[in-house]
Amino acid sequence: MTDESNGAQGCLAGVRVLDLTQFEAGPSCTEALAWLGAEVVKVENPQGGDPGRKSIVGSDGADSPYFLLFNANKKSLTVNLKSPRGLALVKDMAAKADVFVENFAPGAIERLGLGYDVLRALNPSIVYAQVKGFGEGSPYERNLSFDMIAQAAGGVMSITGAPGGPPVKPGATLGDTGTGMLLAISILGALYRRAATGRGARLDVAMQDAMLHYIRVAFALTARTGEAAPRVGANVISAQVAPGGIYPCTPGGPNDYVYVYTSRANPAHWRRVLEVIGRADLIGDPRYDTVEARMEHADEVHAMVGGWTRQRDKYEAMRILGAAGIPAGAVLDTLELRDQPDFERRGVMQVIQHPDFGAFKMPAWPVRLDGAALPVRPSPLLGQHTDQVLGEWLGLNAAAVADLHAQEVI
Amino acid sequence: MTDESNGAQGCLAGVRVLDLTQFEAGPSCTEALAWLGAEVVKVENPQGGDPGRKSIVGSDGADSPYFLLFNANKKSLTVNLKSPRGLALVKDMAAKADVFVENFAPGAIERLGLGYDVLRALNPSIVYAQVKGFGEGSPYERNLSFDMIAQAAGGVMSITGAPGGPPVKPGATLGDTGTGMLLAISILGALYRRAATGRGARLDVAMQDAMLHYIRVAFALTARTGEAAPRVGANVISAQVAPGGIYPCTPGGPNDYVYVYTSRANPAHWRRVLEVIGRADLIGDPRYDTVEARMEHADEVHAMVGGWTRQRDKYEAMRILGAAGIPAGAVLDTLELRDQPDFERRGVMQVIQHPDFGAFKMPAWPVRLDGAALPVRPSPLLGQHTDQVLGEWLGLNAAAVADLHAQEVI
Repeated sequence: MTDESNGAQGCLAGVRVLDLTQFEAGPSCTEALAWLGAEVVKVENPQGGDPGRKSIVGSDGADSPYFLLFNANKKSLTVNLKSPRGLALVKDMAAKADVFVENFAPGAIERLGLGYDVLRALNPSIVYAQVKGFGEGSPYERNLSFDMIAQAAGGVMSITGAPGGPPVKPGATLGDTGTGMLLAISILGALYRRAATGRGARLDVAMQDAMLHYIRVAFALTARTGEAAPRVGANVISAQVAPGGIYPCTPGGPNDYVYVYTSRANPAHWRRVLEVIGRADLIGDPRYDTVEARMEHADEVHAMVGGWTRQRDKYEAMRILGAAGIPAGAVLDTLELRDQPDFERRGVMQVIQHPDFGAFKMPAWPVRLDGAALPVRPSPLLGQHTDQVLGEWLGLNAAAVADLHAQEVI
Repeated sequence: MTDESNGAQGCLAGVRVLDLTQFEAGPSCTEALAWLGAEVVKVENPQGGDPGRKSIVGSDGADSPYFLLFNANKKSLTVNLKSPRGLALVKDMAAKADVFVENFAPGAIERLGLGYDVLRALNPSIVYAQVKGFGEGSPYERNLSFDMIAQAAGGVMSITGAPGGPPVKPGATLGDTGTGMLLAISILGALYRRAATGRGARLDVAMQDAMLHYIRVAFALTARTGEAAPRVGANVISAQVAPGGIYPCTPGGPNDYVYVYTSRANPAHWRRVLEVIGRADLIGDPRYDTVEARMEHADEVHAMVGGWTRQRDKYEAMRILGAAGIPAGAVLDTLELRDQPDFERRGVMQVIQHPDFGAFKMPAWPVRLDGAALPVRPSPLLGQHTDQVLGEWLGLNAAAVADLHAQEVI
């Protein structure tokens, strides 16, 4: 799976990314580029670097698993951006870079002296990309943001949760990684244009705005109803059905559930459910024979299906329902997903050997290229590649690098 | 905002995408390519086309808003794939295409005679991309999937919801659009490699696997604890804090809430909260002065903050908290997001004129290129571009196209 001969490394071979991002929204973006083979150099302050290195409660001296997850395949270079020589060094690197990415708080990159106008003057064909919490021109453009703030202000929480209950925060970090993925797509589009035309680009995305992209089905509903899309619990916002939802399984642990769905577009799903649960006698019964009829008798339908699922564990329920051609998925948790062997066998999970952390099994890029998973290399130690990158990008020799170290510039 | 002179159209200018996708996971992917300027030709059956055209309850004869949202900027060509001449036509187009994308049920594209081996023989440099529910080699590889199934089996539901409560389905369609975005990144990586080397690629992604990418913070927690990541309600899975959560506002409607967060990394957030809520007397009070102390008194802290938010509407609360440097976000719903003028002014929302549907305001690609939003053109009517594309891609003249129509091939 980690054989580089599959050419995975080559997709973005030769692309140089100057990465001034931290935490998740920016790092998830540049990590996607790194997995695809770009040379991503993380520029970090010598005093601790990306604060994500110390994220997740309980981390000891080693870099946190949070950092390992969002910074694989990257290089790290430390530099003191507050020193004039350090800043000049980063500008020299920007002149050699194809892509520049940052996700500091609003205004910070300009105060550092690395705003778009400065870097474009040094490198007109640079692809300069930024993540902010709120868009330029938004009433909140100066506000701080985090994943949850974006999910609140971007509509995601308003459509998550039970009918009549309060809004709920999804556990997935859509505000961060969801935004990072949209910026990665845009960077790749700009790189394609640049390869053909030599033209640079300025890209910027707001986390709030990015959320709208992931709740477009809810906007479709609003277009029909003229009302805010409601919370519909486990059902599907665009087309509520019964059966449709999260049904309990034995032995009743916190994640012993199976999702069962019967599509409006395929009446066979309901007939298959009746056969599986041993109620073929109800096939054709007008109380249940259409989606509308089943929604009217939704409590009965849920009880019938739940009565069957409760007799089985979630894996058995998923296996039987799935084999019968009914869309079904066990609610799997992170421990189950980490430990089921098929994910590792398929390269969706890969074990890296981190020099401090040791062996770490982590989700890799989930898209296969030419039948194989992209290889994952451990996230860099702080400053691990400082000397190497200064030599390769800027041609600095050992004496010059030693002087920069002595002056505490790097 | 829709001025094409900004060059947005040009990012993927000249890239031809043969699009055999339907519903959302595939269409969201090819739409991203279309927004970036690729020529995306949707191949549809003449009897109704993409079933997404009729999605969302209550749609009349016109294409549904669901379809409009996921198929902007594309072309539509109808062809009967069950007829030998129709199939031959699509193969001729595949020979001219740069990218091919499909998300049929497992095995369907091979049964149609358009599997990877067939198209690669016709066009060795094609980028061939597929979305499936479960990965090749997974015990569920033959199973059907939908957005919710992926969110169940991919861990997302297991980390969404209240402590002690059942798993909750997020409203965002991460299983579909979340997967589509990862495939779009991979296609763009492969296109970049192809431009440099002429080499084609085969890409495939499973919706279940794609979900792991969006819940990596939960995997970081599991790496620390050795246990499944729990549900933590509105708090943050990696670092629970108080205040931190969804607080009620006046007048108490279903989405009258504000998310308030105080970062562990920045003790100033808590002091600012105390000042804003008029309790500066508690600054330095040991009962609340550290994150740990506040978590011990979490109920009191939530009551203090909630007492203040209840006196205000969510916009005022967000404005005051945000201006004080406290991360805060009102819970906005789809109607508010659609109708607030700043989104349209900034091009995040754009109004299209659809020939049947009429004016439709929809979320556009949220990343700005060179300071402007990418232009949005209405989704195509069924078969709208059949004749044009057959002429341009295959050089068929009017008589040849008329014959294909007469034979009901197209």
